[in-house]
Amino acid sequence: MGVKVTALSGGVGGARMLRGFAALEDVDLTAIVNVGDDDVIYGLHVAPDIDTVIYTLAGQEGLAGWGVRDDTVAVMTALDRFPIDTWFRIGDIDFATNLFRTARLQDGWTLSQVTTAEAAVFGVEVTILPASDDPIRTEVHIPGEGWLPFQTYFVDRQHLSPVDDVRFVGVESARPAPGVLEAIEDADLVVIGPSNPPLSIWPMLAIPDVADTMMEARRVVAVSPLIGGRPIKGPADKVMEGLGLPGGTAGVVAAYDGILDEIVVDPVDASDSALDLGVRIRVLPTRISDIDAAAALASRLLEE
Amino acid sequence: MGVKVTALSGGVGGARMLRGFAALEDVDLTAIVNVGDDDVIYGLHVAPDIDTVIYTLAGQEGLAGWGVRDDTVAVMTALDRFPIDTWFRIGDIDFATNLFRTARLQDGWTLSQVTTAEAAVFGVEVTILPASDDPIRTEVHIPGEGWLPFQTYFVDRQHLSPVDDVRFVGVESARPAPGVLEAIEDADLVVIGPSNPPLSIWPMLAIPDVADTMMEARRVVAVSPLIGGRPIKGPADKVMEGLGLPGGTAGVVAAYDGILDEIVVDPVDASDSALDLGVRIRVLPTRISDIDAAAALASRLLEE
Repeated sequence: MGVKVTALSGGVGGARMLRGFAALEDVDLTAIVNVGDDDVIYGLHVAPDIDTVIYTLAGQEGLAGWGVRDDTVAVMTALDRFPIDTWFRIGDIDFATNLFRTARLQDGWTLSQVTTAEAAVFGVEVTILPASDDPIRTEVHIPGEGWLPFQTYFVDRQHLSPVDDVRFVGVESARPAPGVLEAIEDADLVVIGPSNPPLSIWPMLAIPDVADTMMEARRVVAVSPLIGGRPIKGPADKVMEGLGLPGGTAGVVAAYDGILDEIVVDPVDASDSALDLGVRIRVLPTRISDIDAAAALASRLLEE
Repeated sequence: MGVKVTALSGGVGGARMLRGFAALEDVDLTAIVNVGDDDVIYGLHVAPDIDTVIYTLAGQEGLAGWGVRDDTVAVMTALDRFPIDTWFRIGDIDFATNLFRTARLQDGWTLSQVTTAEAAVFGVEVTILPASDDPIRTEVHIPGEGWLPFQTYFVDRQHLSPVDDVRFVGVESARPAPGVLEAIEDADLVVIGPSNPPLSIWPMLAIPDVADTMMEARRVVAVSPLIGGRPIKGPADKVMEGLGLPGGTAGVVAAYDGILDEIVVDPVDASDSALDLGVRIRVLPTRISDIDAAAALASRLLEE
């Protein structure tokens, strides 16, 4: 039995953090993955964060931040001829994943069961838990326009629109998936990966009992998704600003109000370690696109 | 304004008959297509007869009797790795068609609207009408076993099981799709293609008002799907026998009880023209896999 690590993950950043822990020996790793990005696209239940985590742990992640690497596009090429919006691109192998998920959910499987089977197909041995088996749909509020589904905002609009509010439709009646609360309770270390706090992590913390369980966890460490106040990719800084959160490290700590024991910031932000944010601030290299860098960070996070 | 021809069609045989009429000038052709074979496969609404008709009229039909010719199989190859039955094979281009259909039905389009758009994508100018926009599901009864969905019987079991009854779930409350009754009423000629009578044509005749409208049509001609008592492909003879219908031409006429003015039989069955079946019996070449043969037959059918 190794050290029990439970990591909360959105898409790319969280998946890379997971890959770092998975590379270590003697770590018993559980991933709790955001489902707020899930949607129905072309009639299929897509779960982009779950797939990104599994494809990344399998070493097959698409280099653009979604899908399977070097996937072919025969279906999308054919679909482009039809009168339907095709801004959500899905490769052929990725279509198979989404078809399997959709079919099995219709058969009555839970999203957890589907995800376990998917991980096995891709040879991933990490325990992957959807945050919930119940539907949660992240929506963002665009000033002067109204609420948009997450994928419309993120993919179709390329997250260029300003956001001044977020909500997680369905979350009040959603339950944590089986094993989620236990994985947080039992963990020697709970890590919040370098994901977008409002868009990728809040949809999990908003599930009843999850935030409370996080507060009682043995040790909760967040890796800041901001380096010099900016994310490597994506709109985290803009969304946090739009929601009235402070900039930089202070904003990340505020986003996880009361949950964190520690926050890890990149050496670029070493001066932040002088801030009084009510949590321990550690300075460690957080650029983890490289698997060795991710493993090095994971290894340091295990040290108290 | 040409001669108005309305043809009832199942899959391959009916599609080839349609292709013959479509090759003629001065024919205003409407196809009414069986939807009893429709099912939900991998979460998608498949409509095999509609697709076969459209792909055939586009000159892109798969040579095995389903799907698109020379289609690639990237999705199926990936799906084969998942724990799910994959006996229903769908090529990549064909997946796009089924994804479009499924997505648009979820958007609230009718099957008729989806089908019109699909035909346009494939450059098909024939009017293609699903027999109904409401769900009708053909099931076959296997002695000693019970009722099977059509696709399970036809594809998974390769129609090897004996059949002693058929039913069309939902048909009592199904309505003919917009234009179906009018196309039968207004036609100078209504043709029932060389399709399997119980499995491909009955699901249409069982829709309320369709059989009655057929009986009042100006002229209804069926092309027998049997040559020397056997279909070119498929289980028509076995199913008809299992249902207690006579063999050969007499069985086809009985299957269309009271609806036909004429039946067309192949020269192989020329001796059947001496039978007293209460309808005119014409002898014409009915092997129409070749488009010229199909056009020749269509041209002869136009002659009263």
